Amino acid sequence: MTKPDAVLSQTSGVSATFTSVAPVSENGYISEEQVRQNIPTKKQFVDSHRQGVIIEGGVGYRQTVVIRSYEVGPDKTTTIESILNFFQETALNHVWMSGLLSNGFGATHGMMRNNLIWVVSRMHVQVDRYPIWGEIIEIDTWVGASGKNGMRRDWLIRSQATGVVFARATSTWVMMNKKTRRLSKMPEEVMAEISPWFIEKQAIKEDNPEKILKLDCKATYVNSDSKPKRSDLDMNQHVNNVKYVGWMLETIPDSFLESHLLSSIILEYRRECGSSDIVQSLSEPDDEGIILQEGIECDSHINFLNGLSLASEILEGSGLLGSFSKAPLRFTHLLQIDGRDSRKEEIARGRTTWKKKFSSMPFSPS
Amino acid sequence: MTKPDAVLSQTSGVSATFTSVAPVSENGYISEEQVRQNIPTKKQFVDSHRQGVIIEGGVGYRQTVVIRSYEVGPDKTTTIESILNFFQETALNHVWMSGLLSNGFGATHGMMRNNLIWVVSRMHVQVDRYPIWGEIIEIDTWVGASGKNGMRRDWLIRSQATGVVFARATSTWVMMNKKTRRLSKMPEEVMAEISPWFIEKQAIKEDNPEKILKLDCKATYVNSDSKPKRSDLDMNQHVNNVKYVGWMLETIPDSFLESHLLSSIILEYRRECGSSDIVQSLSEPDDEGIILQEGIECDSHINFLNGLSLASEILEGSGLLGSFSKAPLRFTHLLQIDGRDSRKEEIARGRTTWKKKFSSMPFSPS
Repeated sequence: MTKPDAVLSQTSGVSATFTSVAPVSENGYISEEQVRQNIPTKKQFVDSHRQGVIIEGGVGYRQTVVIRSYEVGPDKTTTIESILNFFQETALNHVWMSGLLSNGFGATHGMMRNNLIWVVSRMHVQVDRYPIWGEIIEIDTWVGASGKNGMRRDWLIRSQATGVVFARATSTWVMMNKKTRRLSKMPEEVMAEISPWFIEKQAIKEDNPEKILKLDCKATYVNSDSKPKRSDLDMNQHVNNVKYVGWMLETIPDSFLESHLLSSIILEYRRECGSSDIVQSLSEPDDEGIILQEGIECDSHINFLNGLSLASEILEGSGLLGSFSKAPLRFTHLLQIDGRDSRKEEIARGRTTWKKKFSSMPFSPS
Repeated sequence: MTKPDAVLSQTSGVSATFTSVAPVSENGYISEEQVRQNIPTKKQFVDSHRQGVIIEGGVGYRQTVVIRSYEVGPDKTTTIESILNFFQETALNHVWMSGLLSNGFGATHGMMRNNLIWVVSRMHVQVDRYPIWGEIIEIDTWVGASGKNGMRRDWLIRSQATGVVFARATSTWVMMNKKTRRLSKMPEEVMAEISPWFIEKQAIKEDNPEKILKLDCKATYVNSDSKPKRSDLDMNQHVNNVKYVGWMLETIPDSFLESHLLSSIILEYRRECGSSDIVQSLSEPDDEGIILQEGIECDSHINFLNGLSLASEILEGSGLLGSFSKAPLRFTHLLQIDGRDSRKEEIARGRTTWKKKFSSMPFSPS
C-alpha cells in the first residue's frame, strides 16, 4: 500500500478541524450545535433517519440511498462526484454509528485528544454500472488494518432490488497532526478505539498496485486556470478531495466524455489544496489506447485488428466493441499547484480507465 | 406574479426532456430504465425510501432529510445551493408520489402527450436559519394556482426536533412547448391532472412583489468568464437553475460573504443557458447598504448613526448589530450571455438580502 511518507496534508472527507466546541462529556457544557447535531455517544445499531444499519457481525455499516435528481448528470446516471460524495457520507455515518465520533470531520475522541485528523493517501474506485435517477442502492462500508499506522476503508455499492454490484472501492487513511501538518504514528489509544472495527474483507484485492507516473509539461491536455471556489471547500477549509476528480476529468475532451464511461479511477493524494492555490490539471492518454484530438484518431493496434473506419457512429453497437472491452482506454493525470516561482507542488496523481458506451442513446435496451 | 411572457426557455428542476422511452402503459414495453426507476403509476401516501409522506389532507408532500457532510460549507451550515437542490428534489418526489410522473423531469403524463415541459419563471427563498451538518429537517411542499396558465409551488423547511421554521420559499412555473421553445397555455387535460392538488396556503405572501431593475455594464462587480461545465448541466441538457445562484454569489467579495449570511434571494428567470454559452454575472450593492471594496467602507447613513469606526471586528457582537438588522444589506444581480456581437441576452435577474453574522466563530454560543 501507499507509504505514509508519500502523503502530505490533504485532509479529505474523514478528518477533523473544529475544536471550538468541547465534547459534551468534558466540561458538562452542551452547545446549541451539539443539540442540533445529536451525535451519539454510544454505539447505535440502526439509524432510521440515515437509513443505516450495522452489518458484518457488528462492525460494518450499510446505508440505503435513493439517487436524487441533482446527483445525476445530463444522461440521468449518477456522476462519479456523487459516488465519491456517497463514500464520504457513509464513512462519516459509520463513525457516527460507532459512538466514536468527536466534534470534527470523522475524528474519534482519541484523535481529538491527540490533535489528529484523518488524511486520505489513496483511493481506488471501480464502477461497473452507474445508478440512475430514482434508483435505490445499498452502500456497504467497513474498515481494516493498513500497516501499523494506517487504516483501509472499503465500500461496495449494490442495487437494492437485485443485489447486483454496481461499484467497489478501497482507500487508505493515515493520521496527521492538525497543527504541525506532519504525518503521525497512530497512538495506542486511537488504535484501541478503532481496531475492534477492523475486518479482513476487501472490496478490491490489490496485490501489486501499479505506480502512477508523474506527468510533465508535455502532457497532451493541460488546464491551467482552475481556482478553488468557496463551494469547493469543505469543513476542513480545504478543497474537498471530490473536487480533485472534477479537475482531472475537466481536461478530457467533451467528445471523449460523451462516448465513454469511466470504469475505474485511482487517486494518490500528495498534499492539500487551499482556497488561494491556483491549480494546473494535466492529463495524458495511454499509448496503447486511442488518442483523441478534436476528431477521433485511432492507434495502429486497433486499425490492425479490423481495418475499418473507426468513426464512433460505426463503432456503436457493432461487433468491434469486443476488442475495445479487451483494451480499455486509460489516462494518467496530475494536479499541481501553479506557483509563482518555477516550483510546482504536486497535489495528486490519478489514473482513469474508460470503456466505450454501448450506445449514445441513454438506456436503449441493447 | 410574473407574467409568462417574461419567461423564455429556462428549463429547471421540474421539467421534462426524455422521450426515447415510452411509458409502460402505452405499448406494453417495459425498459430496463423503468424497472430500475420504478416510478409509481398510482398515488402513494408513504415512501419509506424517500422518507416522504403525503400531508395537507392528501395534497402536500413532506420529506425528512438529514443534512449530509457535502451539503454544508466550510462553516458547517447548509449551502444555499443545497437548499435549492432540496427544493428541486422534494418537488420531483411530490410529483413522483402523485402517480402523475411521466418519463421526464417532473412532467405529467398529460404534459408528455402535449409535448410540454415545466419552466420556472420566478423563485423567492427566505432563510432565517441554515441547518447544520447532521441536523434533521422536514421539508414540506405543495402547489397552488397561479393565474390561468401557471402553477405556484411553495416550500417550508423546519427543524424536525423543534418545529422551528428555518426557511420558506415560493416559485412560479409555466409550460413550454419542448420543440418550439415557446410558452404554452395549460391544456385542459393537464389542468385536470394537477388542479386537484392545488391549495390556497402560501409560504410567503407577496401582495406587491418589487420589480428587479436591470443592471448595466457600470455595475460594481462583474465576472465575465463563466463557462458552464458538464457537471452544471441537468437532465434537460441545460444549466440547472441552482447554478445561476452560484454565479450570482461568486461576484460578491469574499470578505463580505465571510461576515454576512444570505437571508433572502429572489430570482427572475428570463431564458435558458446552454452548455456553449459564456455567462457574465453582474452585481450591485444597494445605495442604502454598505458598499464593500477591498476593505470595508460604510455609507453615510450608518456613520451618522454612531460615528464609530465600523471595521468588522468592532461590529461583531456589539450593540450596533441592532441597526444592521433594521437596515439589511441588499444586492441586485444580473446574469447575461456574453455574446460575440454586442447583444447580451438576459438569463436571470436577482435580488439578494443579507444580514451580518453575529460572530465569525462558527456556533459560538452567543
